Amino acid sequence: MLQKPIKQIRLESDMTINQLIEEMRGAAFGAGRLAEAVDIYEAMLRDDGTKFFGFAGAMVPAGMRQIVVDLIKDQQIDVLVTTGANIVHDLIEAFGGRHYKGTEQVDDLELGRRQINRIFDVFIPERHFTVFEDRLLDIFADIDRECMGIRELLTEIGMRVKDPNSIISMATEKNVPIFCPAIADSAIGLQAWLYTQTKKLDVDTFKDMREFMDICYNAKKTGAMFVGGGVPKNFILQSMLVTPRAGFDYAIQLTIDRAETGGLSGATLDEAKSWGKVGEDAHTVTVYADATIALPIIIAAVKERLK
Amino acid sequence: MLQKPIKQIRLESDMTINQLIEEMRGAAFGAGRLAEAVDIYEAMLRDDGTKFFGFAGAMVPAGMRQIVVDLIKDQQIDVLVTTGANIVHDLIEAFGGRHYKGTEQVDDLELGRRQINRIFDVFIPERHFTVFEDRLLDIFADIDRECMGIRELLTEIGMRVKDPNSIISMATEKNVPIFCPAIADSAIGLQAWLYTQTKKLDVDTFKDMREFMDICYNAKKTGAMFVGGGVPKNFILQSMLVTPRAGFDYAIQLTIDRAETGGLSGATLDEAKSWGKVGEDAHTVTVYADATIALPIIIAAVKERLK
Amino acid sequence: MLQKPIKQIRLESDMTINQLIEEMRGAAFGAGRLAEAVDIYEAMLRDDGTKFFGFAGAMVPAGMRQIVVDLIKDQQIDVLVTTGANIVHDLIEAFGGRHYKGTEQVDDLELGRRQINRIFDVFIPERHFTVFEDRLLDIFADIDRECMGIRELLTEIGMRVKDPNSIISMATEKNVPIFCPAIADSAIGLQAWLYTQTKKLDVDTFKDMREFMDICYNAKKTGAMFVGGGVPKNFILQSMLVTPRAGFDYAIQLTIDRAETGGLSGATLDEAKSWGKVGEDAHTVTVYADATIALPIIIAAVKERLK
Amino acid sequence: MLQKPIKQIRLESDMTINQLIEEMRGAAFGAGRLAEAVDIYEAMLRDDGTKFFGFAGAMVPAGMRQIVVDLIKDQQIDVLVTTGANIVHDLIEAFGGRHYKGTEQVDDLELGRRQINRIFDVFIPERHFTVFEDRLLDIFADIDRECMGIRELLTEIGMRVKDPNSIISMATEKNVPIFCPAIADSAIGLQAWLYTQTKKLDVDTFKDMREFMDICYNAKKTGAMFVGGGVPKNFILQSMLVTPRAGFDYAIQLTIDRAETGGLSGATLDEAKSWGKVGEDAHTVTVYADATIALPIIIAAVKERLK
Repeated sequence: MLQKPIKQIRLESDMTINQLIEEMRGAAFGAGRLAEAVDIYEAMLRDDGTKFFGFAGAMVPAGMRQIVVDLIKDQQIDVLVTTGANIVHDLIEAFGGRHYKGTEQVDDLELGRRQINRIFDVFIPERHFTVFEDRLLDIFADIDRECMGIRELLTEIGMRVKDPNSIISMATEKNVPIFCPAIADSAIGLQAWLYTQTKKLDVDTFKDMREFMDICYNAKKTGAMFVGGGVPKNFILQSMLVTPRAGFDYAIQLTIDRAETGGLSGATLDEAKSWGKVGEDAHTVTVYADATIALPIIIAAVKERLK
Repeated sequence: MLQKPIKQIRLESDMTINQLIEEMRGAAFGAGRLAEAVDIYEAMLRDDGTKFFGFAGAMVPAGMRQIVVDLIKDQQIDVLVTTGANIVHDLIEAFGGRHYKGTEQVDDLELGRRQINRIFDVFIPERHFTVFEDRLLDIFADIDRECMGIRELLTEIGMRVKDPNSIISMATEKNVPIFCPAIADSAIGLQAWLYTQTKKLDVDTFKDMREFMDICYNAKKTGAMFVGGGVPKNFILQSMLVTPRAGFDYAIQLTIDRAETGGLSGATLDEAKSWGKVGEDAHTVTVYADATIALPIIIAAVKERLK
Repeated sequence: MLQKPIKQIRLESDMTINQLIEEMRGAAFGAGRLAEAVDIYEAMLRDDGTKFFGFAGAMVPAGMRQIVVDLIKDQQIDVLVTTGANIVHDLIEAFGGRHYKGTEQVDDLELGRRQINRIFDVFIPERHFTVFEDRLLDIFADIDRECMGIRELLTEIGMRVKDPNSIISMATEKNVPIFCPAIADSAIGLQAWLYTQTKKLDVDTFKDMREFMDICYNAKKTGAMFVGGGVPKNFILQSMLVTPRAGFDYAIQLTIDRAETGGLSGATLDEAKSWGKVGEDAHTVTVYADATIALPIIIAAVKERLK
Repeated sequence: MLQKPIKQIRLESDMTINQLIEEMRGAAFGAGRLAEAVDIYEAMLRDDGTKFFGFAGAMVPAGMRQIVVDLIKDQQIDVLVTTGANIVHDLIEAFGGRHYKGTEQVDDLELGRRQINRIFDVFIPERHFTVFEDRLLDIFADIDRECMGIRELLTEIGMRVKDPNSIISMATEKNVPIFCPAIADSAIGLQAWLYTQTKKLDVDTFKDMREFMDICYNAKKTGAMFVGGGVPKNFILQSMLVTPRAGFDYAIQLTIDRAETGGLSGATLDEAKSWGKVGEDAHTVTVYADATIALPIIIAAVKERLK
């Protein structure tokens, strides 16, 4: 129990991210966990397994879009599960819109009058949504297909987006499936409602399950990076309940949600072991941190190690 | 700015819940907000409006099921939006299963070996899931309907559940629609996958939007109680983006999620005003509390006032 | 492991606080913990032990003052450990000042210009501090005593305060010692600095330790209610490190601080067992809740049970 | 309001810490705030002001000791305010003891029986405390001085500690005063109690105030880095209430404490402006992060910029 003395972190000038992580490895609390996350993520990428990426929270508006694009490009994500919102904001940027750095200390009524929407300290003018809506309706009209799954709908959209810095575009190019079970809960859902008042958009709620389960069945090893919780986290984890697998082999969770109120977003990865969602001998760690801080650090450190 | 002196809370023996709330009204921090939530919820129920109820988190396993059943019975919920998990756990109890009080300080591997699943300090044996799965497959087989929305699927299920203490059963009886956009992200989704390997279950992803929007369009006033965040919160709020309404008139949010990491669950109701999801003159409050504490208190206090 | 089925909470009109707690006992998450806290606090009061009360956070400004006064009056607190701030704000009210219900959504620069100080959603005008400062200097001048401990200084102050609703006054009257190790970290410290520029105020930093330890040594049983963490929590707990006792017999903690970042305020009561601060067989619970909500409920429920 | 588009973070191999921070500057949420903290801390160090450092939480056990030692050595801390615990754990290492990396998932009763104390995931054997206690009693016996302030006591101790990697030793060497208002609330307080049963240790509670206030009065500009909250944060901030200064010119806070429950640790730096603790035009930012992650990053990035 007293094998590993804490090593006091020593900082030098011009340290690289991974050099800092190496210092953090000897420390405790969040620093120690961050270093552990880098180790596990590296091992997960080096292993011959299927890499799931759960991507929840307003990560695209916050500036995490390119990181995910590059991970897909570098074949470090095999399966992406995300929220409707992240896809919408990815498309907004693909269609020429922008997010803006604002502040949370602002009069929201004044913002509302100026038709600026706020996501904590990010501002986005409603006119960017208008462009998004028009373009999406055009794309819907261009899709001529029946009984799609949500994944297929997203692939159809991705094929019609020309932006090398777009998540949905890059995923489509690289054949990385995007799953988004709660897609109706987003501006895509709202536009689908408008569109289907006059035309048909035939998307089946459960069709994706087979494709997703097949991926799980066929995987040699499985690893998951959970950026936030929400539907992406649960959807990835629940797959293990019906596969013969013994749960995920690697799991990293970046969240500040708490366990004590019982929601799945804050649930520990140990709790997931009682269900068999995470394996008995799995390599797991939760970093209790804002994902916009932890994710870039982990990815940059592993990039340095793998180069 | 100095109109209302803080009144120091004075406790008596045998106080009723509402008497305590009246004392809390003069206090600050969480106590003051809890009292404000009671006032707003009372006003929302007394007003002639449509009452939305967002119900996220493992609330049924935790013991909040009967409260929702009674709210539906008493016509205090017009529209229920929830997660697949809450429906699954409602059905588990309807099918004779139980949840058990456990502890979070436990060896999850040991639990896993005993086939007991953990949700923080709630235990549930896997055999209750087995019963649920069998019964759900029977129900699926009994449904003979094409191109349902998710709401319709839930109504079909609700019609086949005979349990006066079941949320889905009571909602069906009282014609309260249940919306569950992320239904695939639950054991219902997993069973639908099994079922659709041999049979057809035709559920459209976007069909519910029209029914949901029609409710929003036709409402005189609108109020929402958000138990937790997640998909239910966003799905309810986003409806206002495409209706001519000026946003919700009443909104109460019970959560401990934080705003600073930018997720929608922790977003303030002020932020929602910048989008027009919540009205300029709306009555709103967020109570930063475990919903299993705050919800029973608010409902009991308002029950006392309305009797 | 599956002995206690969750009992779904059932609410009635006109329930008393304790009736609600009885319903919560069968529930999980925060509701279950709140009920457990009531049980433990009742047992602690019924037992023949010494009752410590750690009182941190801006609880007096928030409206918790009278609750503590009544607990002292009812002999349910034997030892009070608190922060300088709570004593200062108790004195401000004793000297005729008031705290006011404000809002956290305010321009703090505007407040500053109006000489109104903010504590989250509580406002207090600087002129109340001016009265406090003058009165305190008079009291200092009236104390003619050498080599006091901090506890003795507070007793001297308490003897000069005439307010039946004051914590310091009631504690002095009932011979309940108040310990405040960080007293210099408050407006009392600031006034002591002013006063000692010309006069003598001889207060020893460590003198209280003996009196505090004697109380711990002589106690039959020991119980502690921790409202928040901070210095009061640690000061109470650390006493067990040098007494022959086997740690506290009862401990209840009301906090929303987290364990993961390693601070003592958020540390679990289990961690305290590794140190011997809390006994092996102690009755303990942490309620993760805003203390302004949890404290009144627990006290009111126990009042009902003990009447 | 729409001047600064979010720049999507782009990661490269072998990035230095500051290069990552430059990428984060264009992002939002925690990443944006972290970059802002680096900018403000750099400006604060470059300015000709007095630099306060509030150091709360179990930061020495977690591995942050050397960082503070180096900051003192590099003259980047002029005034250190900390908790008794951080001094105790600094001394434990100075006296040859160690902290060990453990885990929070452990049987605390088992740890207790093995005489290992736990601080979240840090273990420390009680025998290191025994050494600390003996050495401290020797030091107390060696100090022959009357009517010390707490700062003077710490200087006396620092003079007797020979460890180039010790905070207290380096601070003494570099004439950086250490203030610790709540010193009795620590193992130093416990040892002082033992010692004063037979001998005299004359430490005045309020004597430090003059020295501390003189520093504040004489400062040209003032800046503060707050690692955690607690007594160090409040003690530093409250100084501005009685100085003619218009509040701190720079303030950076690293914490995950919340504002909504009204404690000072979680209070925003805006709230501090209403009191005049922080200046109207001050450069301020709060990074909502585990300090063991945020502190090394900020210090390393600024080191890179200043070299």
